[in-house]
Amino acid sequence: MAPTGTKKGILERLDAGEVVIGDGGFVFALEKRGYVKAGPWTPEAASEHPEAVRQLHREFLRAGSNVMQTFTFYASDDKLENRGHTQRFTGKQINEAACDLAREVANEGDALVAGGVSQTPSYLSCKSEDDVKATFKKQLDVFVQKNVDFLIAEYFEHVEEAEWAVQVLKTTGKPVAATLCIGPEGDLNGVSPGDCAVRLVKAGAQIVGVNCHFDPATCVKTVKLMKEGVEKAGLKAHYMSQPLAYHTPDCNRQGFIDLPEFPFSLEPRILTRWDVQKYAREAYDVGIRYIGGCCGFEPYHIRALAEELAPERGFTPAGSEKHGSWGSGLDMHTKPWVRARARRDYWEKLKPASGRPFCPSMSTPDGWGVTKGHADLMQQKEATSEEQLKALFNKANKDH
Amino acid sequence: MAPTGTKKGILERLDAGEVVIGDGGFVFALEKRGYVKAGPWTPEAASEHPEAVRQLHREFLRAGSNVMQTFTFYASDDKLENRGHTQRFTGKQINEAACDLAREVANEGDALVAGGVSQTPSYLSCKSEDDVKATFKKQLDVFVQKNVDFLIAEYFEHVEEAEWAVQVLKTTGKPVAATLCIGPEGDLNGVSPGDCAVRLVKAGAQIVGVNCHFDPATCVKTVKLMKEGVEKAGLKAHYMSQPLAYHTPDCNRQGFIDLPEFPFSLEPRILTRWDVQKYAREAYDVGIRYIGGCCGFEPYHIRALAEELAPERGFTPAGSEKHGSWGSGLDMHTKPWVRARARRDYWEKLKPASGRPFCPSMSTPDGWGVTKGHADLMQQKEATSEEQLKALFNKANKDH
Amino acid sequence: MAPTGTKKGILERLDAGEVVIGDGGFVFALEKRGYVKAGPWTPEAASEHPEAVRQLHREFLRAGSNVMQTFTFYASDDKLENRGHTQRFTGKQINEAACDLAREVANEGDALVAGGVSQTPSYLSCKSEDDVKATFKKQLDVFVQKNVDFLIAEYFEHVEEAEWAVQVLKTTGKPVAATLCIGPEGDLNGVSPGDCAVRLVKAGAQIVGVNCHFDPATCVKTVKLMKEGVEKAGLKAHYMSQPLAYHTPDCNRQGFIDLPEFPFSLEPRILTRWDVQKYAREAYDVGIRYIGGCCGFEPYHIRALAEELAPERGFTPAGSEKHGSWGSGLDMHTKPWVRARARRDYWEKLKPASGRPFCPSMSTPDGWGVTKGHADLMQQKEATSEEQLKALFNKANKDH
Amino acid sequence: MAPTGTKKGILERLDAGEVVIGDGGFVFALEKRGYVKAGPWTPEAASEHPEAVRQLHREFLRAGSNVMQTFTFYASDDKLENRGHTQRFTGKQINEAACDLAREVANEGDALVAGGVSQTPSYLSCKSEDDVKATFKKQLDVFVQKNVDFLIAEYFEHVEEAEWAVQVLKTTGKPVAATLCIGPEGDLNGVSPGDCAVRLVKAGAQIVGVNCHFDPATCVKTVKLMKEGVEKAGLKAHYMSQPLAYHTPDCNRQGFIDLPEFPFSLEPRILTRWDVQKYAREAYDVGIRYIGGCCGFEPYHIRALAEELAPERGFTPAGSEKHGSWGSGLDMHTKPWVRARARRDYWEKLKPASGRPFCPSMSTPDGWGVTKGHADLMQQKEATSEEQLKALFNKANKDH
Repeated sequence: MAPTGTKKGILERLDAGEVVIGDGGFVFALEKRGYVKAGPWTPEAASEHPEAVRQLHREFLRAGSNVMQTFTFYASDDKLENRGHTQRFTGKQINEAACDLAREVANEGDALVAGGVSQTPSYLSCKSEDDVKATFKKQLDVFVQKNVDFLIAEYFEHVEEAEWAVQVLKTTGKPVAATLCIGPEGDLNGVSPGDCAVRLVKAGAQIVGVNCHFDPATCVKTVKLMKEGVEKAGLKAHYMSQPLAYHTPDCNRQGFIDLPEFPFSLEPRILTRWDVQKYAREAYDVGIRYIGGCCGFEPYHIRALAEELAPERGFTPAGSEKHGSWGSGLDMHTKPWVRARARRDYWEKLKPASGRPFCPSMSTPDGWGVTKGHADLMQQKEATSEEQLKALFNKANKDH
Repeated sequence: MAPTGTKKGILERLDAGEVVIGDGGFVFALEKRGYVKAGPWTPEAASEHPEAVRQLHREFLRAGSNVMQTFTFYASDDKLENRGHTQRFTGKQINEAACDLAREVANEGDALVAGGVSQTPSYLSCKSEDDVKATFKKQLDVFVQKNVDFLIAEYFEHVEEAEWAVQVLKTTGKPVAATLCIGPEGDLNGVSPGDCAVRLVKAGAQIVGVNCHFDPATCVKTVKLMKEGVEKAGLKAHYMSQPLAYHTPDCNRQGFIDLPEFPFSLEPRILTRWDVQKYAREAYDVGIRYIGGCCGFEPYHIRALAEELAPERGFTPAGSEKHGSWGSGLDMHTKPWVRARARRDYWEKLKPASGRPFCPSMSTPDGWGVTKGHADLMQQKEATSEEQLKALFNKANKDH
Repeated sequence: MAPTGTKKGILERLDAGEVVIGDGGFVFALEKRGYVKAGPWTPEAASEHPEAVRQLHREFLRAGSNVMQTFTFYASDDKLENRGHTQRFTGKQINEAACDLAREVANEGDALVAGGVSQTPSYLSCKSEDDVKATFKKQLDVFVQKNVDFLIAEYFEHVEEAEWAVQVLKTTGKPVAATLCIGPEGDLNGVSPGDCAVRLVKAGAQIVGVNCHFDPATCVKTVKLMKEGVEKAGLKAHYMSQPLAYHTPDCNRQGFIDLPEFPFSLEPRILTRWDVQKYAREAYDVGIRYIGGCCGFEPYHIRALAEELAPERGFTPAGSEKHGSWGSGLDMHTKPWVRARARRDYWEKLKPASGRPFCPSMSTPDGWGVTKGHADLMQQKEATSEEQLKALFNKANKDH
Repeated sequence: MAPTGTKKGILERLDAGEVVIGDGGFVFALEKRGYVKAGPWTPEAASEHPEAVRQLHREFLRAGSNVMQTFTFYASDDKLENRGHTQRFTGKQINEAACDLAREVANEGDALVAGGVSQTPSYLSCKSEDDVKATFKKQLDVFVQKNVDFLIAEYFEHVEEAEWAVQVLKTTGKPVAATLCIGPEGDLNGVSPGDCAVRLVKAGAQIVGVNCHFDPATCVKTVKLMKEGVEKAGLKAHYMSQPLAYHTPDCNRQGFIDLPEFPFSLEPRILTRWDVQKYAREAYDVGIRYIGGCCGFEPYHIRALAEELAPERGFTPAGSEKHGSWGSGLDMHTKPWVRARARRDYWEKLKPASGRPFCPSMSTPDGWGVTKGHADLMQQKEATSEEQLKALFNKANKDH
């Protein structure tokens, strides 16, 4: 694996005030392309179909991503075994292949390689801190050997496990980012976003934020709460967000997992490129500088991030050669009413129809949890006993 | 370019009663991946970024496609010039590259290569029959040299131009399929689907049907009308449909082009995989045996076609190794309410929410045309003068 | 009962080209006020609570109605018995009371009294023509004795029964209007609107049209088909429409009865006053001159008819003293954004929200029948066998 | 005016734990009937058209109301003058007529008469406490002379003005109820519901709660907050709610006034009777015992309150003779699928469609204010400066 040579590191960029564009959601994108199975969501495709993973990296690079995350989500050994992985390849092989692919494509442009770990079955089944940390360590050994540029601990529902992950990752001396899959109500144990962020920073993370589970507006709001917590504690950090590319105003605390449409009928919720541009602007305005996406983000969504922030950054991504900003590619259309769509104002104001008159606009989440926002909307009675039930449930879930 | 060897030809398959699974929409899929520009929609990526085109072919093959259509939509010389193509590659080069990519991937599985032509600026600007035919001939020369397995004339709004295309394609002796981008009201000159189909069969097409512009239900309905017309005329043909992967109940005669969401805010209309399975069944039930997709169809949509018709065909596609039918991949989920989604009944009945409470479910098409279906719904007054206006408009459009 | 004195008769008005404003729906309005039971829908309130019926007549008169229809819907003896009426009053008493109330209020303004009959259980249970006619005759005897100004046969699903009713009513020499509760597909035996209208005119009706079961747009369309049929047959008639005050784009042939919301959850479908003004204009434009409403029409809806057509008629109704046209009553509001609503353009363009994000915009009708319009929208397969089933059902229903 | 004789007073009933059913919204109901003008909303109809006001009282009585509120909303002299009232009748005459009508009908059943005052232009234009109190005193003099049974101060946006009203009303020795038109965020000066309630109780109100401006769920939630505040302060009170009969999940702090549909296109938001039954249950469950309605509540809505709480109260209202509970009146319908609607489960689960596929389900309020709930949903940025603007606006509004 080649060294990154003269590229600026992640902290150099963020310290200099640069915007770093993240990448999109590999498991969801590759599920639609036929290489990841929904349910297990494991990343063995890095070994089985490297050409597909490489191509997706390339598309994100072309769209403007400055980070190639290794396709190692759910690639801890306990997860790979747990989920019935057929085991043509070992966990080590999959993690190595993922590093190689990320590096190969990163070298084709201005991108860094980030090795990623995520929450583990070991933690949820209440293994000891040592056991859980050993699980992270295994992936980390590959990342160190492959010399990734920095590390990301992502998709944690419990801040405690994320702290452990950060502590392990910190042993390498590489920069560490940590993102939780939480909303404004905090982690599944009820730790607030502000407190979560403080704990992650104290554990050693230089970059903190959220990923997955909620739509952009909810994620931006949550990171804002994190930032307020960190600043109130007199600490410093950089901030990142990698939300869903789905509208989820009707989520409860557990995020889109509990929506009845998850994961096979989320299509009507998919963000347009204009929704993404709005998100980029909102994230930037609250001080987030590492801005990417998670499940549902396709290359064109990432390109929309890069295009929205082109004025701040001074350049557009390679992929913009095939994209007229704000629909300007339509300005030669033969029909006058289609030409009339070649302008920002048109797309910003459009309220896109679903073509589904027999469907509602909001769903009621399954499961036990309802968020305050949802409760407001649903105008339900107090969830006191529900909360108690959920606490028991989460505990049981962990204990089990 | 290698010969297809011992593979059964398209007509052998259809004559034997087999189901042929088509592929999905290249221009839309590659637009989202960053390789096609919306507006021109031209396919120079075949030369510029062959790895991206190859990968998409592979994904469709893996999803179950039996046909690799050459990525030559809008690749006639007049179109490539017309739309500001930067011309790093000649039309001939683009067509050749597209043939090579299709053949390369077709050889990796049980797929045929189909050379495709589509409607031309020459016709719309009222060039002579000879001029228009000469345009088709140029692409055809490449297809013959590259020895594609059969030919498709697709995306024609006027049956007359499609007839001309079929007549040219027929000179090769290869099987010819012809699809119009029309709905139940017929082509833009008001020729009914039944009459269109009869004319195409008489011109020599062995396979007729529709592609693009409308959602599956509308396309199945239109092909049904074509079939009735052909049978009433005492003729014989095979039938194909390659619809949009968007719900478009609110379209007028010009299809999704006139919807205000076209082409950058169609996301809420995207078909789920279950919508596609419903389409596959409906298409099969009316006697369509060449079943594929057009704009919006991603690999997982094609896989849904192959999975729905697996009982009839006796096998599932390679890509099904990463897909539990009807959500069965969720049956190991830790949450009971998510496990409860691992069944057909759940997904068939689900009315997916858009997460967009400020958006309507239907749009009013732009432009002058409204279909009868739309008029019923909108409950507008008779469009008599509107029809006259549209006739004038279409004429003007052609004359101009 | 006082004579109408010097008032112009219904035919004099229509022959002179005047617009006649009908009244609204008594059974639905009085159900909400607590005097009619949903299910039976019988009008014994005329005897039981005359003050409530009188007040509703007055409100319609004040809103601009030129016709006080006797509250005798479903007041035939067979219906009153059939539906478990407690029989504190005889059918004769109820019909008499209804006539007296209509006349009392009609005398307070420029309104005529119309005696009304509607479809009978006798017909649906396949009694003989003589039996059915005898049933109408009983009500008619009261109308003659009370000297109503003209007669209306309304709410017939089968044109045959309506013909019989007209034939009976004609024996009095009074003007006769006849309206069916059908849509563009015709009556329940499949007789087209045009043919229905011709048969009613030939039976002696001077005014023909539709009432109930469908929304204004559908009713206007149906009456337009009736008018075309009558004119094609070389006949002459006046035309009337009295539609629902509910949006029903998702109805099948049986109208709103088959919508799942009937009759207790129709609220989200209620027309605004602006919807009614649109209807008034559309009805006028196709040549309908007797324009009223049926179920759901409240006094303010009738006032909207009178206000929309005030320019043609030269006056506004008494009730307009309490109504600023197009929201002008808001022009003194303290908030500027509420004042901004005091204009026609605002209300015409507004797409009113339902406040119900968990509800769809369209329903699937219960029962066996689907209209073509609905089928288009639902994009279902041909209903051939369904039609056969429905024919059998309707026959069975009648036979039974 | 006759004395109430042996009827139990309002406090006797509430102290005994009885449920008291309020009445519905006079100005909105009478606007639709043609007797009140939207904009001014003044109640001169009590003098101009007493039969219309009497009839509405009777309908509410029949529906189960235990309180006849005098139709004196906005009947303070400053309001009557302010809004262009034509002044055929003096304020005193109107207030007297309203008292007489309420008493006349109250005597026909088990209902009390409540004299009502509401917020005044004097307060909003920053008249002195003495001036404002003098305005209330004028109406009160009539109420005392007419010997109403108790007094209600309702529809106050600022708790301060409500306190003044309570102080004036208390001078009579009659029981006093006080309701604000606020939501969970408190009054327009930002006083929380809990604090508002404490202040009203301290001013002397025995019954406190909310009316108008928000839908039932929001009102129940607000009264719950009031109750918590009162209990926390170690005080005691009875609680009442009289919400809108409109779904308003998208309201901001100013309630439905700022919805773009107010007041002429609220139809799609109207509560069904089943929505009202749900409200009755929720209100009861949080301890509210004076349960009624405001704008939009028609007699059948009030009947739904009485029917839902019939098990607790031991009787149904007179109007239930014309209403089968939970649709049971449909159990004789000839169509089996309509008969199938004659059950509670059906109506409770039904998600009623709007028949308006071109309309959204939620609106964005006009004006400057957005509630937290709305902000959550809209996912907008912090409204800090907006709040400042609004504060200025409210101040200006008052100062002006």
